[in-house]
Formats: sequence, C-alpha cells, structure tokens
Amino acid sequence: MEKMKERKIVVAVDESQESMYALSWCITNLVSDTNKLVLLYVKPPSAFYSLDAAGYIFSNDVIDAMEKYSMHLVNSVMERAEATCRDLKATNVNMERVVGVGDAKDVICSVAKKLDADTLVMGSHGYGFFKRAILGSVSDHCAKHAECPVVIVKHP
Amino acid sequence: MEKMKERKIVVAVDESQESMYALSWCITNLVSDTNKLVLLYVKPPSAFYSLDAAGYIFSNDVIDAMEKYSMHLVNSVMERAEATCRDLKATNVNMERVVGVGDAKDVICSVAKKLDADTLVMGSHGYGFFKRAILGSVSDHCAKHAECPVVIVKHP
Repeated sequence: MEKMKERKIVVAVDESQESMYALSWCITNLVSDTNKLVLLYVKPPSAFYSLDAAGYIFSNDVIDAMEKYSMHLVNSVMERAEATCRDLKATNVNMERVVGVGDAKDVICSVAKKLDADTLVMGSHGYGFFKRAILGSVSDHCAKHAECPVVIVKHP
Repeated sequence: MEKMKERKIVVAVDESQESMYALSWCITNLVSDTNKLVLLYVKPPSAFYSLDAAGYIFSNDVIDAMEKYSMHLVNSVMERAEATCRDLKATNVNMERVVGVGDAKDVICSVAKKLDADTLVMGSHGYGFFKRAILGSVSDHCAKHAECPVVIVKHP
C-alpha cells in the first residue's frame, strides 16, 4: 500500500458533537503520522451594522461582546478538537488551525481548494448552530462542490 | 493511532472511470491489510416483461441476451476492480464481491447496513449508465441515508 506522500486532510470542526465524532473517525481511520491535519472552523461574518429583532442597531458594546464571544467559541472548539487528537494518541500528526469567516459551505470548499486538500472530512449535519435549522445542507453542498474526496461522517 | 479491529469497507463499483478512481483512492488512503474490502456492484432489476421504445414486448431471446450481457458487465467491472487492487499492491486485503439487484441508491444503503459496513466509498457521479442522466443522485442519497461514514470521491 502506498502511503508515502504527505497528505493534507482538512476536517471541518464546529461546536457539534458530530463534528468531533467526524474528527475521531478521521484520526482512527484516515490519518497517519506523515499526514498534515488542518482543523478548519468557519465563523459567520462579523456584523458591522447589525439590527436586532426589534430593529435597533446594536451598540459597539454589544458588537464587541459578540466578537469576543465568537473568538471564545473558536478557541473552545479548537481546544476540544486538539484534545480529541491527544485522546486518540495522534500526537505526532502535524496539526494546523485555520479559521475562516463567511458562509460555511462556501468557505469550507474554498479553503479545501486553496490548501490543495487531499481529503475533506465533516459531520453530516448543519455547520454551527446558525445553520442547524437546514440540516445537512453544508455537507450536501461540500460533497457536491469540493474538488477533493469528501468524507461525510454521521454520529451513530 | 488505533487501527486494530477489522474494519469492513464497502466500495460501490460500476463501469465508470470515477468508481475505479474511488476504489484507488480507498486503497491508497483508507484500506490496510487488516481490513475487509467489499466490492459492491448493483445491477438494475431483470426485466421479465420489457417493452422496447416502440412498445414491443421483448422476446425471450432478447431477455436472455440482456441477462447474459448484464452478467458479463458485472464480471468485467469486478475484474477491473480486482486488477486495480492488484496494481496498487493491495494483494493481502481480504476482498469480497457482492452483487445487488435493484435501485442502486437503495441497494447500496441497505447492503452497507446489512454488512454492518464501517465505511462506504463511492464516486460522486451517477451509478451505472442507466443512472448517469441524474448526475450525483446516487451519491447524494447515500451520503444522506447510509448510516456509516460515506466517502464521495470525484475524478480529478
């Protein structure tokens, strides 16, 4: 079996259990020590002028707080992902964090392309709770539009 | 990395280049010697009473010929798949042929479930030339409905 060349595997992670399960699957089944593992988190675009439900423009304080919360979320997801890797003893794997901003389905495909990923791995459900209403839409889109092989992992 | 337990990987193969590429990807990236590789081919249901385009009922001779052709197709795809495995030096992998009959998208999901597959691998395009008009429909369906992780591989 030929497993020489460094492969680059991009795993889309978010705050869902399913994305952590997808990461575990990836480490157990796909990743070897010669691979590069890219943990990709996509956050929704920052709101410069945001209206709340009642039509008020958010004050800078609120925007700052949201920004801080969003960075906190990124860090907590990334730390959880790295802990998952450690738990599965994938400590020799070359790992990298990438944070994208925008519409998850487009950002995931374009990052996979830009990084020249060999494989894209993701959970089957929505990406982040902003998206969860449209179950599966992100993975559907990526399975169709990403140029590399895409692994869709369901939480059992 | 934990790669002990025998995993069962089902690869859906058909007469397309893409499905052979998906198989190559699978062997190069996913399969190790302790895995069981199931080559799954799905043929459309046999026609007992078939009308041709002009509305004539096919004679038994035509049906026999079609049946023979379909078995020939199964064998040629399976042999090509096994040759692909040999070419990639995956000669120690425990391999099995499974031929299903029916609607590819349903048969693939149900075989994966029945065999308790750990992973299902397939090309991104239609399954067999009967289906190719509806590009991607089979892999879309399987990515949504199969219970195990699904790898969708595109021909580059």
